[in-house]
Amino acid sequence: MTRFSFELAATDGRARTGTIHTPRGDIRTPAFMPVGTAATVKAMMPESVAATGADILLGNTYHLMLRPTAERIDRLGGLHKFMNWDKPILTDSGGFQVMSLAALRKLTEKGVTFKSHIDGSRHEITPERSMEIQKLLGSDIVMCFDECPALPADKARIAESMRLSMRWAERSRDAFGDRPGHALFGIQQGGLEEDLRAESAEALTQIGFDGYAVGGLAVGEGQEAMFGCLDFAPEQLPQDKPRYLMGVGKPDDIVGAVARGIDMMDCVLPSRSGRTGQVFTRHGVLNIKNARHQDDPRPIDDACTCPACTNYSRAYLHHVFRSQEMISSMLLTWHNLHYFQQIMGEMRAAIAAGSFTQWQADFHANRANGDIEQL
Amino acid sequence: MTRFSFELAATDGRARTGTIHTPRGDIRTPAFMPVGTAATVKAMMPESVAATGADILLGNTYHLMLRPTAERIDRLGGLHKFMNWDKPILTDSGGFQVMSLAALRKLTEKGVTFKSHIDGSRHEITPERSMEIQKLLGSDIVMCFDECPALPADKARIAESMRLSMRWAERSRDAFGDRPGHALFGIQQGGLEEDLRAESAEALTQIGFDGYAVGGLAVGEGQEAMFGCLDFAPEQLPQDKPRYLMGVGKPDDIVGAVARGIDMMDCVLPSRSGRTGQVFTRHGVLNIKNARHQDDPRPIDDACTCPACTNYSRAYLHHVFRSQEMISSMLLTWHNLHYFQQIMGEMRAAIAAGSFTQWQADFHANRANGDIEQL
Ligand SMILES: [Zn+2]
Ligand SMILES: [Zn+2]
Repeated sequence: MTRFSFELAATDGRARTGTIHTPRGDIRTPAFMPVGTAATVKAMMPESVAATGADILLGNTYHLMLRPTAERIDRLGGLHKFMNWDKPILTDSGGFQVMSLAALRKLTEKGVTFKSHIDGSRHEITPERSMEIQKLLGSDIVMCFDECPALPADKARIAESMRLSMRWAERSRDAFGDRPGHALFGIQQGGLEEDLRAESAEALTQIGFDGYAVGGLAVGEGQEAMFGCLDFAPEQLPQDKPRYLMGVGKPDDIVGAVARGIDMMDCVLPSRSGRTGQVFTRHGVLNIKNARHQDDPRPIDDACTCPACTNYSRAYLHHVFRSQEMISSMLLTWHNLHYFQQIMGEMRAAIAAGSFTQWQADFHANRANGDIEQL
Repeated sequence: MTRFSFELAATDGRARTGTIHTPRGDIRTPAFMPVGTAATVKAMMPESVAATGADILLGNTYHLMLRPTAERIDRLGGLHKFMNWDKPILTDSGGFQVMSLAALRKLTEKGVTFKSHIDGSRHEITPERSMEIQKLLGSDIVMCFDECPALPADKARIAESMRLSMRWAERSRDAFGDRPGHALFGIQQGGLEEDLRAESAEALTQIGFDGYAVGGLAVGEGQEAMFGCLDFAPEQLPQDKPRYLMGVGKPDDIVGAVARGIDMMDCVLPSRSGRTGQVFTRHGVLNIKNARHQDDPRPIDDACTCPACTNYSRAYLHHVFRSQEMISSMLLTWHNLHYFQQIMGEMRAAIAAGSFTQWQADFHANRANGDIEQL
């Protein structure tokens, strides 16, 4: 059986490209992971998600443990079979979403108790229970259970939280055990503080993981502060393991993160925006509900090869959005996911060719031009 | 250019099978037409609708004239290009939906005025305007503008309404003109009255159409009354032209209609039911939201080759329905449309083979058995 491994193929500045090998297939890095919260990437068939170029999906432990439950998914043969996705799946630990979605949360050294946002039922997640749930789901890349304070917070609070997460990382490592072909990632915390980030990286490296996430960013601190942290945080982590920036982001966030040494990202943005009519293109962002599109026979982007751009006019996409037809979400989500994967593919090629600086300049220049002129 | 023509290949009792030839492709009869109300079959990509076996779609004049408007669709190259469907499209005349959806309707000899259910704007449809709208849409099979009284109604009211529809049919014929490759269908009215249906059929045949619809049924009269009318109404119409039963129906309605000489049908049922969790199979009807499915690893129907049955368990379909995920509507609609088209294909083969009586017996026996036992 293929073991989980990371092969770094090329670097260009701090940007890296390579391949994560798993028993369920390779993940080309830098990789963008679409989010399949409730065992579906909203508005997409899984084969369509694969067609956009996604090598891996993210599943949400918090949502799946509540409905349909991890035990039920296990009885049904695991998450891959359940949702008809045979490529790799990364699951988060549940920690972040408990903090953002659940009610009556209570945090102790042991873990966190909370009430479900769906039916009010009481639940507990500890590092050990998070490992158990992610194993029941059949996740290929398992995340340590961690705690993430909302920013801004004072340094003492951030340090205390980070150290709790490091103790939980050790318990996660112990509970995970030895599972060939499956990976466990540690999560660096420490807010925007370089010394705390270094302390966290050191603690995680001592424990030893198959990959390392930069956690606790993209929580409202703004792009400048995030990039400032990414100027030092990824380099504190081992060079020979994948580095995953959680919950990022907009296209320019992604490009800036890759430029700073990040290998993996996930975000709901392309799919959520597809449902609200927000469309990402190489020219920036447009909103299909705007009346300027209602008579426009042109595609969203004449250079895009996705079904929305190949087969439909802006006028049609405007019409079905206004009519609240499902095909609007289906087509715009497909386009957005296709565009995100296209950026990733272009960045992988540019890094391998040593032309990533030029690629970034072109990326920003194209966006600065803005959307095509109204007819 | 292929002209519009109907080729009757075989009959079995009163049931018929054949082919409607059009410049946009053949329509195998008996044919079921999925409904694409607002330029989309809800929750489906058009290529997926084609994959279910549909040779033709129905578009709704009333909805499209209000949004995005017939003139806009014409400017954008017609409905086929607009919605990415290059096979034949039949459009209704708008009359029925004005009566069921619009507000402040006013009916005169000239036509009908009404207020849009979307924005309250005032509109008028006359036979001439209906022909113009359907031409702007680029419809392949155009329906006469008619009036359809709600049943029950007294015979005098039904006769009066039918005769108005016959005068409108003549005006529709005149306004349609000569459009090679495009067809105009007359619509028989007369409620459940055999003599009025005969009078209507005679009037339409005198005018001369490319096909004939049995109108004014499936409006709440019940299956027994509908079948009673279908025992005489189709036979009053020309043998050498296609016969279309509007707005029908449930699988057993469809089978009974085909047995009575109907060649074409349309209904929102398979797509609407897909969105409410109602699933049609050879074993009858099931509702995926029922808790009995929540742990069931089996497909909806192990003999069905649609994506919902090939790739997903009942447990998954139950989960995504409960979670209100779009993929639930996408998969269940696909299954239902696939099942409806499968019935049509089986009936065409059985009629051609002279085994339609046996096929009907099997169809009803399978349904009587009910859904598979709970695990
Ligand atoms: Zn596109
Ligand atoms: Zn099926």
